[in-house]
Amino acid sequence: MEYSKQKLHEEKVFKDPVHRYVHVKDRVIWDLIGTKEFQRLRRVRQLGTTYLTFHGAEHSRFNHSLGVYEIIRRIVDDVFDGRPEWDQEERLLSLCAALLHDLGHGPFSHSFEKVFHLDHEHFTQAIILGDTEVNGVLTKVGKDFPKHVAEVIAKTYENKLVVSLISSQIDADRMDYLQRDAYFTGVSYGHFDMERIMRVMRPREDQVVIKQSGMHAVEDYIMSRYQMYWQVYFHPVTRSAEVILTKILHRAKELHETGYSFKQKPLHFYSLFTGSVALQDYLKLDESVIMYYFQIWQEEEDGILRDLCERFMNRNLFKYVEFDPAKEYKKHSELETLFKKAGIDPEYYLVVDSSSDLPYDFYRPGEEEERLPIHLLMRNNELRELSRESDIVDSISGKRRTDHKLYYPVDLLYDESTKKNIKRQIRTILELS
Amino acid sequence: MEYSKQKLHEEKVFKDPVHRYVHVKDRVIWDLIGTKEFQRLRRVRQLGTTYLTFHGAEHSRFNHSLGVYEIIRRIVDDVFDGRPEWDQEERLLSLCAALLHDLGHGPFSHSFEKVFHLDHEHFTQAIILGDTEVNGVLTKVGKDFPKHVAEVIAKTYENKLVVSLISSQIDADRMDYLQRDAYFTGVSYGHFDMERIMRVMRPREDQVVIKQSGMHAVEDYIMSRYQMYWQVYFHPVTRSAEVILTKILHRAKELHETGYSFKQKPLHFYSLFTGSVALQDYLKLDESVIMYYFQIWQEEEDGILRDLCERFMNRNLFKYVEFDPAKEYKKHSELETLFKKAGIDPEYYLVVDSSSDLPYDFYRPGEEEERLPIHLLMRNNELRELSRESDIVDSISGKRRTDHKLYYPVDLLYDESTKKNIKRQIRTILELS
Amino acid sequence: MEYSKQKLHEEKVFKDPVHRYVHVKDRVIWDLIGTKEFQRLRRVRQLGTTYLTFHGAEHSRFNHSLGVYEIIRRIVDDVFDGRPEWDQEERLLSLCAALLHDLGHGPFSHSFEKVFHLDHEHFTQAIILGDTEVNGVLTKVGKDFPKHVAEVIAKTYENKLVVSLISSQIDADRMDYLQRDAYFTGVSYGHFDMERIMRVMRPREDQVVIKQSGMHAVEDYIMSRYQMYWQVYFHPVTRSAEVILTKILHRAKELHETGYSFKQKPLHFYSLFTGSVALQDYLKLDESVIMYYFQIWQEEEDGILRDLCERFMNRNLFKYVEFDPAKEYKKHSELETLFKKAGIDPEYYLVVDSSSDLPYDFYRPGEEEERLPIHLLMRNNELRELSRESDIVDSISGKRRTDHKLYYPVDLLYDESTKKNIKRQIRTILELS
Amino acid sequence: MEYSKQKLHEEKVFKDPVHRYVHVKDRVIWDLIGTKEFQRLRRVRQLGTTYLTFHGAEHSRFNHSLGVYEIIRRIVDDVFDGRPEWDQEERLLSLCAALLHDLGHGPFSHSFEKVFHLDHEHFTQAIILGDTEVNGVLTKVGKDFPKHVAEVIAKTYENKLVVSLISSQIDADRMDYLQRDAYFTGVSYGHFDMERIMRVMRPREDQVVIKQSGMHAVEDYIMSRYQMYWQVYFHPVTRSAEVILTKILHRAKELHETGYSFKQKPLHFYSLFTGSVALQDYLKLDESVIMYYFQIWQEEEDGILRDLCERFMNRNLFKYVEFDPAKEYKKHSELETLFKKAGIDPEYYLVVDSSSDLPYDFYRPGEEEERLPIHLLMRNNELRELSRESDIVDSISGKRRTDHKLYYPVDLLYDESTKKNIKRQIRTILELS
Repeated sequence: MEYSKQKLHEEKVFKDPVHRYVHVKDRVIWDLIGTKEFQRLRRVRQLGTTYLTFHGAEHSRFNHSLGVYEIIRRIVDDVFDGRPEWDQEERLLSLCAALLHDLGHGPFSHSFEKVFHLDHEHFTQAIILGDTEVNGVLTKVGKDFPKHVAEVIAKTYENKLVVSLISSQIDADRMDYLQRDAYFTGVSYGHFDMERIMRVMRPREDQVVIKQSGMHAVEDYIMSRYQMYWQVYFHPVTRSAEVILTKILHRAKELHETGYSFKQKPLHFYSLFTGSVALQDYLKLDESVIMYYFQIWQEEEDGILRDLCERFMNRNLFKYVEFDPAKEYKKHSELETLFKKAGIDPEYYLVVDSSSDLPYDFYRPGEEEERLPIHLLMRNNELRELSRESDIVDSISGKRRTDHKLYYPVDLLYDESTKKNIKRQIRTILELS
Repeated sequence: MEYSKQKLHEEKVFKDPVHRYVHVKDRVIWDLIGTKEFQRLRRVRQLGTTYLTFHGAEHSRFNHSLGVYEIIRRIVDDVFDGRPEWDQEERLLSLCAALLHDLGHGPFSHSFEKVFHLDHEHFTQAIILGDTEVNGVLTKVGKDFPKHVAEVIAKTYENKLVVSLISSQIDADRMDYLQRDAYFTGVSYGHFDMERIMRVMRPREDQVVIKQSGMHAVEDYIMSRYQMYWQVYFHPVTRSAEVILTKILHRAKELHETGYSFKQKPLHFYSLFTGSVALQDYLKLDESVIMYYFQIWQEEEDGILRDLCERFMNRNLFKYVEFDPAKEYKKHSELETLFKKAGIDPEYYLVVDSSSDLPYDFYRPGEEEERLPIHLLMRNNELRELSRESDIVDSISGKRRTDHKLYYPVDLLYDESTKKNIKRQIRTILELS
Repeated sequence: MEYSKQKLHEEKVFKDPVHRYVHVKDRVIWDLIGTKEFQRLRRVRQLGTTYLTFHGAEHSRFNHSLGVYEIIRRIVDDVFDGRPEWDQEERLLSLCAALLHDLGHGPFSHSFEKVFHLDHEHFTQAIILGDTEVNGVLTKVGKDFPKHVAEVIAKTYENKLVVSLISSQIDADRMDYLQRDAYFTGVSYGHFDMERIMRVMRPREDQVVIKQSGMHAVEDYIMSRYQMYWQVYFHPVTRSAEVILTKILHRAKELHETGYSFKQKPLHFYSLFTGSVALQDYLKLDESVIMYYFQIWQEEEDGILRDLCERFMNRNLFKYVEFDPAKEYKKHSELETLFKKAGIDPEYYLVVDSSSDLPYDFYRPGEEEERLPIHLLMRNNELRELSRESDIVDSISGKRRTDHKLYYPVDLLYDESTKKNIKRQIRTILELS
Repeated sequence: MEYSKQKLHEEKVFKDPVHRYVHVKDRVIWDLIGTKEFQRLRRVRQLGTTYLTFHGAEHSRFNHSLGVYEIIRRIVDDVFDGRPEWDQEERLLSLCAALLHDLGHGPFSHSFEKVFHLDHEHFTQAIILGDTEVNGVLTKVGKDFPKHVAEVIAKTYENKLVVSLISSQIDADRMDYLQRDAYFTGVSYGHFDMERIMRVMRPREDQVVIKQSGMHAVEDYIMSRYQMYWQVYFHPVTRSAEVILTKILHRAKELHETGYSFKQKPLHFYSLFTGSVALQDYLKLDESVIMYYFQIWQEEEDGILRDLCERFMNRNLFKYVEFDPAKEYKKHSELETLFKKAGIDPEYYLVVDSSSDLPYDFYRPGEEEERLPIHLLMRNNELRELSRESDIVDSISGKRRTDHKLYYPVDLLYDESTKKNIKRQIRTILELS
């Protein structure tokens, strides 16, 4: 039998705390899960440094990827199958794209991408199209199949309906991570009636739409998303850990560039430092490897690298104050000057971090980061953009919320063994007692 | 104010998915959580290799330790406080022992302890009593305080009531891990009414007892424990991963002893190989470090080490058949012979693994691993051993259940490029098709 | 010992699916629960006719009353006790007012109050202050105690802090019913982190305020409330049952007033019909009694009463269309005319029903139904009204949402045995196929 | 289209707190739910008097019946459909039998059946086969269809596989009520992995069997059942309410038989008193009607009837002591004598109540109440009886547990206004202080 149609002799189930069970019956999916590139996602945490704020958030991207797959499987097999607007030939493609959509994520993606100018989406494409086990499995389905999977994930696939299942303002990706991250952190946000939303999803020519009767479940989902962003994803303590992590990477790079001699050669970082990361090098990076280096760098000669690594490993994070970059730039430069005088390098120890989110947006053609709005399928079969029907969504639609904080090492500022007066000045400016 | 009595200006709360919130008001507890030895527990998984079977089981011992602390805090502050049989002077000691009881666990404890003859209890004592940040905090409470904490954990402390809170057949340790492991794996076992059990716990001279009215909640707890052991902890797939892990360590040790030259010196393993592990070396071991080595050993010269590491990293585990060592020793030695002939070293690729558990036991004085039975406090104030009152518990009391399996690499046995006939013989014996 | 200070020998616990356990230690509370006026609440459903839409909603006001009591108990004993702004002398008063706040509710309050011009708040006062078992218990606490309990419930008690615990925009009443009604209906709205909200509640001179750090939990609570109103409380099917119920009562009253002779004298209704309901008569009314009459009225001579009772008992409800009273009054009167022509009395069979809610409001002094806004306690100890801090709350604050529907008996309109053409005309206007 | 094949234009969903949603697509099922006989189940509580012990247990048999239907629907459509051993022609029959299996239950069945010698199974048959709306719907499917539905429920249908879905030691009925009753009472027992059990159910010639891999989920289910029986269903407080209820019915019957003149004629009870209950009379009985009579009987002349009704309505129940009928018959007759002397009629106020359950049983051919054992489907396709494979089940298999209690009105025994010395004697015997 054709590889793409092969079913496992017996369905495999994964016990999943969020969706109860993840079901796999297709051989292609089973084989993809078994590839080493997919197994590597077990060694990359879904929420990066969030576990330092919410200790339950230790779950991996492996978990999330299975979850997104399972959501798509249920939509396609239980809701879409048999509807004229849906082409069941797109089923396997949708499942594969769902499973693999995060394949290129590296360890602590956010910081790594920023410091080393990487892009996980680039690596997702590279893994799917390159010389990998994943590519081997996909190619067995068909010569063009890897390309199509890559296109769905890149949102360039011609069937926009399939694209919107995986990437839209109400896609399987978001529905999984909101629930999963809520489950593992233990917060009470993040709950919405996904079963209801799935049942009212309908395939249309170029997008998934939501039957009008499901509007309130969607409202609930959007509110969940809003709360998760501000209560969990942008939590200031997590951002503090992120700031330190970013500064560790900066420092290591800087040291390398200035010819510093590490006690143990940071081989895994070389290609990162030089900016040309080959796929095979990238695939060796995972959070164990990074934590290994942070562990040994606690014994490096360089004081800044050592200190930052100790802070990260032992969760001795920076404190913060609210900060308005537009109005307080003078205060900031004053603090920089004082930090230097106090012998605390502001490059590493005085950091502004900003977070910003748009909870929902209607369509703004031509604007950067165009977002597809959510459409309701009305009883008369017309489509209406969600915010025109929902008061609650309308009230937050298109409203970007931004938050800036200034991070600093409070312990150093209270160390009065040196530069006592300058540190007191700094504390006064920061309104520390 | 005395250090032991100091309260935080504002109570700290940790969001915990199992107990909703973990509350910390004592400065001593807050300081202990901040030590680097305690933070290290974030890098040791609670369930070792179980995440390869239940993908949600990625939670760390840090989580569990906070959970045990919280249970004891609720019992002591909400149930015991004010009862004449309870000495509130033992409160802080109980909380510290709860928090620190697993402090000495290393990465993948089970396998490491077996191969390198380590004992995590020994290291728990060493960390509490040695030159560590934890010891520094405890010593501030009182000169003898570290010793007392260590004694409670070692079960030698004179007040057996305190000991039984932390270690008995219904202690805070078990109540936390059953619920926590059920939560993270997602299984439906592991639920019992802990709130009820806590409310019916009563302090007595040398043990915690349970009011008769709570008997059924305790029955439920014992059944949960039984199911968790056989459905989760002894799951054959987890044991397969454990078998491979153990064999990796064996091989690395063997290679070291025979003078093999590793591509990168396995510095973190040296003291393990030689059998004299200093405390400071031990504290550097965590799962990131171990996974780092497994990662790089995938490129070692030695075929066995390389193969086993690849299996572990990419979850290409051994399969198994039921095995009765008493009756099937001949079959086993026959297989060993055939494996050797086939060029597959049976030392590493044909492994018997056994699991065994006693769900509950009454008191058997003098026997190895003496277990304290659970006592019910009857309405007439007498104590009765649980299995005398509960039919269900009586029916499983003292009945040890044991299970043996034989593990082997199924893929190698189907590789017919070499020794085709011998492999077929092996497969026939193993009843593979 | 003084009655008000007496504790039960052993704490009593009620298993509660929402709060896990309800704890009673005070003799006064235990005695109140045992009164027949309080036990009567078991025979009045919390959500009236909602069980005809959400079949799980069969829970009684007894449940809810215990729940409100338990919430106040936890706030007062676990959060407020010991704070200088809180007078622990008000504890028992708060608990009693919480327990008894809904005591005057009769069967299907909404419809009964409308048709017979009753007011459950009036009866709550009457039961607390009149010749009842409840009054007997309260008087044992102190001569003025019943009066104080009644004042707290009537919001006239001088200590406004106590009043605000029971009645405000974030009171124990709402926190219980949102969660409880969500639990029993099974909807996924209605969840918020009550434990968190309770922990950040602080007593102030004349109100309960919320620490700033709890703002997001409060946002979640307000969104829950919004969703519960529109998804559950104002559900159009529930309102259809409510319409029929109201019309049954109207009809029975009209029949009585016009001298109709019922097969069995509706003794329990006499005082309702005449508009002078004595307390002892009122206390005999519960939902069993009402349902008994509806049952036997299914065999009455009068066709309308009989038909409406059959509809209610057998859930053969009216259908509805959206209706805008401002714009569609002509259509309405046209339909009335046609209904009359078709022999279907529009007084009973063509009913407009409106629902309206204000999800949250800031303070509008002097306006009808003044609502106390929710105040946040900022880090600098100032108070700020919630909608000034929360974008989400601001976006819905003060926005009243109203919904009108027109109800009609669809089955009669399709009965073409008589007046076929007129019924077709009606169906055309109602846009029925 | 044939009636039996008709599907609703749009699937109907009921929000169910236990199964999340109940789905109805078949017109036959939708029509059955709409019959007045089925709607009547809304007015009969699932757990009779249990709500007086667990206040959440106010749910009706309507809820449970929908739940059993939904379980069968999922098994048949998601697990059995397509398997050669299953005849999809039996689908609709199975669904109807599931939905209607409890149709004949009257108010407080247990007590009514005992006192008036009724049998709800008899009435289930009568409703299905008699002149009812239910029969009308079923007959539209086919002339013999009502008979087949009745046979499945009576366990006489020739296809025993269908029978075992609805009635066996692991049937849809039990799986629903264990979970539902746990949900509404709020107890932590009653949880097991139903989704898992459903997935491992396999149709065989004359029964449903369970794949070996699901054995542990079944063990968990059996333990749940055991705990629910003893913690909830046989709770001594519930039994106290049941005792009083039974005695009310006895007394009313006795009064009727002795020519007592009730203030209001108890018309609804006449056929019960005379022992010939016609179907149409039976269908008018529901819990509202019964509660109506208990309400008005609180004002009857007869002291015993009045007192017992007041006790029931106001939850002033009897207390109890453990009682061994085999050993304590002398004590019992002594108490009877003393009760008479004290002027308290022992017929109504000194009542022995017994409960007994067999948690699981293997096959005992020929014995009364033959029970079909649960069979596991082993990997080699053989069937094995559950207790031979499961240690836990074996340990409780066939072990009947029985419990006897003696109930009495404690308040009367402490009323020392009369017969002080005799009452003291009674209290001494009952070991009351």
